[in-house]
Amino acid sequence: MSSTAGQVIRCKAAVAWEAGKPLVIEEVEVAPPQAMEVRLKILFTSLCHTDVYFWEAKGQTPLFPRIFGHEAGGIVESVGEGVTDLQPGDHVLPVFTGECKECRHCKSEESNMCDLLRINTDRGVMLSDNKSRFSINGKPIYHFVGTSTFSEYTVVHVGCVAKINPAAPLDKVCVLSCGISTGLGATLNVAKPWKGSSVAIFGLGAVGLAAAEGARIAGASRIIGIDLNPKRFNEAKKFGVTEFVNPKDHDKPVQEVIAEMTDGGVDRSVECTGNVNAMISAFECVHDGWGVAVLVGVPNKDDSFKTHPLNLLNERTLKGTFFGNYKPRSDLPSVVEKYMNKELELEKFITHEVPFAEINKAFEYMLSGDGLRCIIRMDA
Amino acid sequence: MSSTAGQVIRCKAAVAWEAGKPLVIEEVEVAPPQAMEVRLKILFTSLCHTDVYFWEAKGQTPLFPRIFGHEAGGIVESVGEGVTDLQPGDHVLPVFTGECKECRHCKSEESNMCDLLRINTDRGVMLSDNKSRFSINGKPIYHFVGTSTFSEYTVVHVGCVAKINPAAPLDKVCVLSCGISTGLGATLNVAKPWKGSSVAIFGLGAVGLAAAEGARIAGASRIIGIDLNPKRFNEAKKFGVTEFVNPKDHDKPVQEVIAEMTDGGVDRSVECTGNVNAMISAFECVHDGWGVAVLVGVPNKDDSFKTHPLNLLNERTLKGTFFGNYKPRSDLPSVVEKYMNKELELEKFITHEVPFAEINKAFEYMLSGDGLRCIIRMDA
Ligand SMILES: NC(=O)c1ccc[n+]([C@@H]2O[C@H](COP(=O)([O-])OP(=O)(O)OC[C@H]3O[C@@H](n4cnc5c(N)ncnc54)[C@H](O)[C@@H]3O)[C@@H](O)[C@H]2O)c1
Ligand SMILES: NC(=O)c1ccc[n+]([C@@H]2O[C@H](COP(=O)([O-])OP(=O)(O)OC[C@H]3O[C@@H](n4cnc5c(N)ncnc54)[C@H](O)[C@@H]3O)[C@@H](O)[C@H]2O)c1
Ligand SMILES: [Zn+2]
Ligand SMILES: [Zn+2]
Ligand SMILES: [Zn+2]
Ligand SMILES: [Zn+2]
Repeated sequence: MSSTAGQVIRCKAAVAWEAGKPLVIEEVEVAPPQAMEVRLKILFTSLCHTDVYFWEAKGQTPLFPRIFGHEAGGIVESVGEGVTDLQPGDHVLPVFTGECKECRHCKSEESNMCDLLRINTDRGVMLSDNKSRFSINGKPIYHFVGTSTFSEYTVVHVGCVAKINPAAPLDKVCVLSCGISTGLGATLNVAKPWKGSSVAIFGLGAVGLAAAEGARIAGASRIIGIDLNPKRFNEAKKFGVTEFVNPKDHDKPVQEVIAEMTDGGVDRSVECTGNVNAMISAFECVHDGWGVAVLVGVPNKDDSFKTHPLNLLNERTLKGTFFGNYKPRSDLPSVVEKYMNKELELEKFITHEVPFAEINKAFEYMLSGDGLRCIIRMDA
Repeated sequence: MSSTAGQVIRCKAAVAWEAGKPLVIEEVEVAPPQAMEVRLKILFTSLCHTDVYFWEAKGQTPLFPRIFGHEAGGIVESVGEGVTDLQPGDHVLPVFTGECKECRHCKSEESNMCDLLRINTDRGVMLSDNKSRFSINGKPIYHFVGTSTFSEYTVVHVGCVAKINPAAPLDKVCVLSCGISTGLGATLNVAKPWKGSSVAIFGLGAVGLAAAEGARIAGASRIIGIDLNPKRFNEAKKFGVTEFVNPKDHDKPVQEVIAEMTDGGVDRSVECTGNVNAMISAFECVHDGWGVAVLVGVPNKDDSFKTHPLNLLNERTLKGTFFGNYKPRSDLPSVVEKYMNKELELEKFITHEVPFAEINKAFEYMLSGDGLRCIIRMDA
């Protein structure tokens, strides 16, 4: 047991006091973990669109002050009552969605949408007692998606912690906590392209490029990248994307362009934009008979997915995925191994690095569309 | 070789001279099979909605005079040049869609939508020479979906002929040529429910009841039948349907009713109505995480399938199927075996029987919604 176990820890955290305002590094108190909780020392964290989205709080109920952050790598500092499969010193990735191992979803081979620990962006407190483990002078600071990794220490439900190979460099594998696994799993676990097949990837952000990386790993021979932003095309070459289509360059629907390029349609498509029209195109561009389209992007509240049902009758398949269908505790360790045995390349996703004190720069890079992932070093 | 091989055969056929008018039994000439064609002696045929639909010709380009019929059992009379895997005397089922064994679809494990022999309802002639093999006093009579089984003899492309166990009673297994295999395969090959799972079947016509039969064979523990017509419910009990929902009895969408009955949704659903609202309900009534919805019904030209993309993101799967994903030549023989070993019950689908001379009665039964399948005996 570490000397801090059972004690309140005082440490630095980047607090979002108000929507859209720069984060402020504050000294916070982090309470000890309760039953089925784990306190983690975060070593590296990275920034994902979802943090920015809820920090901007343009659509959702604002919940402030709050500690954001959900892609990270760290070490277990102490564990609460009932935690048996983790101990201090374990290397871990916290995850925004969990795996209780008891509900119908966790017991199903087909689902990772745990009833107990499924992502909840509205909740700013811990499940067990509806309280926050963070405070400043006794005033609670809200959690974010059960992870709040923009803090030197954080408390997480045990079901949201993946124990990984301690030899894995946390400054690299931390990006597997969210977006990269989402895209990678969408291709490898859901679309399942075969060697020599053709794959269309809609949206070449970090998630889409991770989907392309999955297609490269699977041995797809044609990986067609589709994006409205031509700046994305150069970067995408590093991810095995072999051809590019910008829908703006054509005066017919992009699904028709792709059908012409591929003699009737691609074998698989993966949509990583969040735009409902791209979702429809991604579905309609797959070949009849065997085509499978996978939707990853998070749609808007009022979106409607529309297609002619004959597109389905002609034996196309449409599937959605959440976190690449990975179960965090059961499956993430093997994704880390894919990196360790050099099957999966993560370095190319990491385009920036800043010390914790400069965390707001990571927000600036993301807002300007510059780069893919910015690693934030907690010890610097 | 039979003595008729290479000769024109004169025999009886039921000719549709005009849309919607009773068929007339005529003496027709049936030309010998050309290269890659087979001439069959039809012993039993049955009537399917698709025959009635094209006979009524309310939507499509009318093509008359025509010989309808596409569910049947018969015996090979003679074969054309290049036909090596069939010979006179073989027991066969002709099928409205084919399997050339050479195209990308035939080579794909996931598709049965053969590029060469996929159903074509507009074509009234043979593929090789764009001519009909039927005539009356030299005037051609059009074919229907390459089968035209309402005739004592017919000519079919070899790719549309399944060779089956000669011990199988053709007056029973003839119904496997279309609707029954379509519903059965939709469940067994595409929805794939597991033992103990819950399955919703939309539409309790012959196709939907065959889908229910598939769920029964797969060991589903709850088979929920949904139909607007309460008359269908009694019959459905014989097919293993355990619960019934009539959307008209509820003032909320039927997908919500089903979600309440099943703690969040069924494991699998199979839509067999052709109604686009039923397709949407069938999709939205499956459980998130693992639910799979399969669409079988043929939609209208202007239908639009609409749903919120979040229903997909929550890991539901939507698939369409055509002829139950069976490849006619490769897979139908094993469906016949399922009947032979008493796994599959066909007798309960056969509600009527008429001699060929009274074929118009079969149309009347179908139009009045009376029964499921009417067997037409060619020798009577
Ligand atoms: N399902 C999950 O578990 C999960 C997890 C993380 C992210 N996501 C979602 O994945 C999506 C992608 O995330 P990201 O971080 O890569 O985003 P991003 O903004 O970096 O990339 C999206 C890309 O899509 C492009 N795009 C937008 N509309 C398009 C259109 N109509 N056609 C073609 N390209 C278009 C944009 O130009 C951009 O390059 C988002 O919707 C995000 O919310 C889902
Ligand atoms: N995909 C294929 O290969 C294939 C092959 C054969 C038939 N089909 C199609 O399968 C469908 C069913 O065929 P069938 O012969 O059983 O037809 P059917 O008319 O005998 O049965 C359809 C049933 O659906 C019910 N229904 C209609 N709208 C409904 C709704 N909104 N909600 C609930 N129930 C509703 C009707 O009351 C009827 O009982 C048709 O669309 C047919 O074209 C497809
Ligand atoms: Zn669970
Ligand atoms: Zn994220
Ligand atoms: Zn073929
Ligand atoms: Zn039919």
